[in-house]
Amino acid sequence: MGLAVASGRPARHSWPQLRRLVGSCGTWRARSPAPERRRPCRAAVTPWLCPGSALHTARPRCQEVPLTCERYGLRRLPFSRLSRGDVAFFEGLLPGRACTNPEELTACNVDWLKSVRGCSELLLKPKTAAEVSQVLRYCHERNLAVNPQGGNTGLVGGSVPVFDEIILSTALMNQIISFDPVSGILVCQAGCVLEQLNEYLEEQGFIMPLDLGAKGSCHIGGNVATNAGGLRLLRYGSLRGTVLGLEVVLADGTVLDCLASLRKDNTGYDLKQLFIGSEGTLGVITAVSILCPQKPKAVNLAFLGCQDFSRVQETFTTCRTMLGEILSAYEFMDEKCMELVEKHLGLSNPVRGSPFYVLIETSGSNSTHDEEKLNSFLEQAMTSGLVTDGTVAVDDKKIKTLWSLRERITEALTRDGCVYKYDVSLPVGKLYDLVTDMRARLGQSAKNVVGYGHLGDGNLHLNITAESYSHSLLDAIEPFVYEWTARCNGSISAEHGLGFKKKQFIQYSKPNEAVFLMQRFKAMLDPKGILNPYKTLPSSP
Amino acid sequence: MGLAVASGRPARHSWPQLRRLVGSCGTWRARSPAPERRRPCRAAVTPWLCPGSALHTARPRCQEVPLTCERYGLRRLPFSRLSRGDVAFFEGLLPGRACTNPEELTACNVDWLKSVRGCSELLLKPKTAAEVSQVLRYCHERNLAVNPQGGNTGLVGGSVPVFDEIILSTALMNQIISFDPVSGILVCQAGCVLEQLNEYLEEQGFIMPLDLGAKGSCHIGGNVATNAGGLRLLRYGSLRGTVLGLEVVLADGTVLDCLASLRKDNTGYDLKQLFIGSEGTLGVITAVSILCPQKPKAVNLAFLGCQDFSRVQETFTTCRTMLGEILSAYEFMDEKCMELVEKHLGLSNPVRGSPFYVLIETSGSNSTHDEEKLNSFLEQAMTSGLVTDGTVAVDDKKIKTLWSLRERITEALTRDGCVYKYDVSLPVGKLYDLVTDMRARLGQSAKNVVGYGHLGDGNLHLNITAESYSHSLLDAIEPFVYEWTARCNGSISAEHGLGFKKKQFIQYSKPNEAVFLMQRFKAMLDPKGILNPYKTLPSSP
Repeated sequence: MGLAVASGRPARHSWPQLRRLVGSCGTWRARSPAPERRRPCRAAVTPWLCPGSALHTARPRCQEVPLTCERYGLRRLPFSRLSRGDVAFFEGLLPGRACTNPEELTACNVDWLKSVRGCSELLLKPKTAAEVSQVLRYCHERNLAVNPQGGNTGLVGGSVPVFDEIILSTALMNQIISFDPVSGILVCQAGCVLEQLNEYLEEQGFIMPLDLGAKGSCHIGGNVATNAGGLRLLRYGSLRGTVLGLEVVLADGTVLDCLASLRKDNTGYDLKQLFIGSEGTLGVITAVSILCPQKPKAVNLAFLGCQDFSRVQETFTTCRTMLGEILSAYEFMDEKCMELVEKHLGLSNPVRGSPFYVLIETSGSNSTHDEEKLNSFLEQAMTSGLVTDGTVAVDDKKIKTLWSLRERITEALTRDGCVYKYDVSLPVGKLYDLVTDMRARLGQSAKNVVGYGHLGDGNLHLNITAESYSHSLLDAIEPFVYEWTARCNGSISAEHGLGFKKKQFIQYSKPNEAVFLMQRFKAMLDPKGILNPYKTLPSSP
Repeated sequence: MGLAVASGRPARHSWPQLRRLVGSCGTWRARSPAPERRRPCRAAVTPWLCPGSALHTARPRCQEVPLTCERYGLRRLPFSRLSRGDVAFFEGLLPGRACTNPEELTACNVDWLKSVRGCSELLLKPKTAAEVSQVLRYCHERNLAVNPQGGNTGLVGGSVPVFDEIILSTALMNQIISFDPVSGILVCQAGCVLEQLNEYLEEQGFIMPLDLGAKGSCHIGGNVATNAGGLRLLRYGSLRGTVLGLEVVLADGTVLDCLASLRKDNTGYDLKQLFIGSEGTLGVITAVSILCPQKPKAVNLAFLGCQDFSRVQETFTTCRTMLGEILSAYEFMDEKCMELVEKHLGLSNPVRGSPFYVLIETSGSNSTHDEEKLNSFLEQAMTSGLVTDGTVAVDDKKIKTLWSLRERITEALTRDGCVYKYDVSLPVGKLYDLVTDMRARLGQSAKNVVGYGHLGDGNLHLNITAESYSHSLLDAIEPFVYEWTARCNGSISAEHGLGFKKKQFIQYSKPNEAVFLMQRFKAMLDPKGILNPYKTLPSSP
C-alpha cells in the first residue's frame, strides 16, 4: 500500500494512485521507503482520563499534590468558615447530594494535571437551576465562597478550590432538555458530558460544534464557562457564535433565564456573552442552548510530515485554498510530541522521520467530491515538496487512531514529568519561534520543550516538562513567555482561560482600562466575591 | 434556454439537462410554458439608497416627516442645551468638521425610512478615536446627549436623534488599518462602508462575512453596533463569532482598546460583546477587527417557485442536507413581495405564478463539484414536487439581478406607502402563520401585508403598508404581533435591534431579570445616560 519513491526529489503522483490511497487509508512517502512505518497503530483508548484513573498510578497521588495555598503562600480572603449548621442546611436541601466524605472530596480538590489542590470540605450536587439558586442565595447571605466545577478537566487551575470553597458540581445536571432537528438547536443542562452529547446528536444526523481531547469527561457547562476552543473551531467557529442561550444563576441566587433557542435575537445587550469564558466567576451556568452542525457524510484525515515550519505554514495556506469549505481541522505537532506519545502511551507514529507533522481533516457532504479535493491538494503538496511523507484515513477506526496521536499529547506530557503549560495565540508566522527560543533559553534545565496546536487558529500549545516542580525553572519561563507573546500582540491564553495560574498575567494581553472594567463587572455581579475567588482577575495590589 | 414541460406532473430532468441549465443560467418549469418569463431582467441599480436620493421623490421630503418628539408626545430628558460656547469648542476641536448647516443636518436628523425625525443642531465628524474621546469627555462633563451615527440605514429609529442630541458621525473614520491574507483578519475604522470593504477584500481573494441590502451605504461600525445579520449569516455565522476585536470610546471619553486581531483570546471577560448589538448606547465603536472568509471560487444562485409554505420549509431541509457545506443563503419571499418589486421598481420576476419563491445560493471552492451538488438537489426538488418552477444563475451579472429581487424588497415597500416593519425570529414551522394571521386581522385597513426573510435562520420580515401613518392601524398591529411572537418563544427583533421604535417591547423577548441587568450595565458604563438616549432599553416607568 505504501507508495515509496526512492528519488530524493519530490515525487509526482497521478490522480488514480492518490485516489487509491485516499480510498484505502493509504500511506506514502516521497523520499525513501521505511517499511516499519506500516505496522498498525494500537487502537486508541479513551483519550482523556479522569483524575485517579488506574492508568495514572505513575503520577503523584492526589494527597501528594501540595496545597495551593501553601505552595504559593496565599492569604485566605475573609469568607465565612463552613459551620455544622451550614452542612445541615445543605443536607436538608440536597438529601444524599451534599457530600462531606473525604475520599470523594479528595479527587474534586485536585486538578487533572495534579498541579493544584484545595481543601474543600463540602461537595454539593444540585440537579436543577432552582437548587443552584437556593445554594447560592444561602452562600451569598452567609458569605461562603463557592467553586463551580464541571468535569474538572481545566488546565489553569480554575476548576478546583484554592482554599476551602464549597465545590458546586454540575455532575447531576445532566439532562438533555430538547433537540430540534429542523434548526439543529440542542438545549441541555450544564453537566452533560461533551462526548455523550455528540453521540446523542450523531444518532440524529448532527454533531456538537466543538470537540476536544477532554470530551470523555468535560461538561458542556464547563466548556462554555471557559469558552473552550478545541479541534473544530477552524470550521464551526467559537462558542461565542454557536451558543445561542444560557441559563445562569447569579451570585445572589437570581436565575437569569436567557435560554433562547433562536439563531438570531437582537433584543438588548447579549448578557450571555459575559458568562461565556468567565470561568464561573460571574455566575453558574446551569443550562446551554447551542447550534449544532449537521453530521458530515464524509470525513477524511491526512497525517503528513513536513521538513520545516515554513512548510507547515505553506501547507496550511495551500490546503485552505484547495480544500476550502471542507477543511475542518489543521493541527500541527513537532517531532518531540510524537516521541512522547510513542514512549509514554505506546502509540505508533505511522509516518516518522520528519521534524514536523500536520493533521488535516476534511468533513463534507459528498465523499467523492471530498476525496477529489483532498487528492488534488495532496498531489500539489507532494509535488511542490511541502510534504514529504504521509498517510490518509477514511474509516472511523483509523481516523480515531490518527486523531489520538494529536489528542493524547497532553496525556503523554503528564507522564513525562511535571508540566509547565502555555497556550498562546500568535501570528502564524511566528508561532514556532517561541518554542525554539524557549528551548534555547532553558537548555538542560528542562526535560523537554514541545510545541503543537491549532495552527489554523494561530494557537500554539507550548509545553515544558521537568522532573519536578521548581521555582527557578518557572522563573526562567515566566514572564519571558508572556513578554515574548505580548511583543507579538498575541494572547497569553488562547483557549485555556486564566483560572488560578494565569490571572496575574492578564495585563500582557489586555490594557488596564479593560481589566478595570472587568473588575467593575465582577463587583457588580458578585459584590461579595464568593464565586470562584482567586481566579481569572488579578488580585488587588 | 427554457426547459418547459407541458405535463401537469412534476418533470424529471436528467443530470445532463440540468447541468446545462446550471452552466448557462437556465430557466425551467415543471408545469406549463410561460415564454414571457424569459425576457431579460433589468440590471440592478445600487440596492440601497441614501436619504434624499432623487429616486425617492415620491416619498415624503425630510422636512415633512413629523418630529418624533411631537408624534409620540415625548418628554426631553434633562440634558444640557447646546450653547454657543459648546459649538465654538467643537469647531476648535474639529475644524471644518463641526457642522451646523441646517441643510446637511436635515438629512442626518431623519431615518432612511422617513419615519422618525430629530432636531439636532450639530453634526460632528471626527477622524480618530482620540477625537471621539475628546468629544465624549466634553459631552460627559457638560451633560450633552450624543447620537452616534453610521450610514443611517437602521430600520428601528436607532440612528437618528429623538430630540436635539449631537450627531456624532463615523463618516470620516473610513480608513482600512490592516489586512492579513494569512489569517484573513481585517482591521478598519468604524466608518468604512460595507460594500467598499468587500470590494477591497475581493481583490485579495477574501470577502466580508456579512452582506446586506444596505451594503452600499451602511458603515461597519454601525453593522457591529446593531449586530447586523443579513444574507450570509447562514454560512458564516453572526458577528459575535466573526468580530475579533473592537476599539470603543466610553461615555466618559475612556478609550477601550480591545482591537486584538487574534482568532482566539481567553484572557478575561469578552468586553467587546457588550458593545456588539448595543446600538451605541454603551459606547461608540471606532474600529473593528473582523475575520473574513476566503472568496468562494464558484457561486451559483437558484430562484425557485414553491406552491405552499410547507414546501418552502421542506425545500430548505432538503437543500441543507444535499448542498451541505456549500449552502450560503436560503431566502424566501411571498408573491406579494414580488408584485411590489415589479410594480414599484420595474424589476422582472423570471419565474412567476407561485405563491412563494426561494432564493438559494451556493458558494464553494470547486465549480464542478458545486454544480453537481446543486443539480442533484434541483433534480430531487423537481421530481418530488417541492419546486415547480425556477431559474439558475452562475455569472456575476445575472446573480446580482436575481439577488436584487430579494434585496430591494425593502425599497419597494417604502414606495408602496407608509411601512410598519417587523423583524422576528420564530420556529421555522410557524414562520409564515404570523403573516397569514396578520393579513386576516387587518383586512382592508392595510394596503399590503407581506412576508419574506432569512428562512434558514428562522428570521421573518413582516411588513405592512398603508397610505399613511395611523395610530389605529398601529394599535391593530401592536401588541398583537409581539404577543404572537412571544407565544412561540420567538424574538421580537431578530436582527434590526430595538432602537427607538421597539424598546418598550423588550419584555416580550427578555425576562425582567435580564432587562434589569441591562439597565445596570447601562448605568455603570454611561451614568449620565448621554449615549443614544431614548433607545434600546425601556424608559423607566
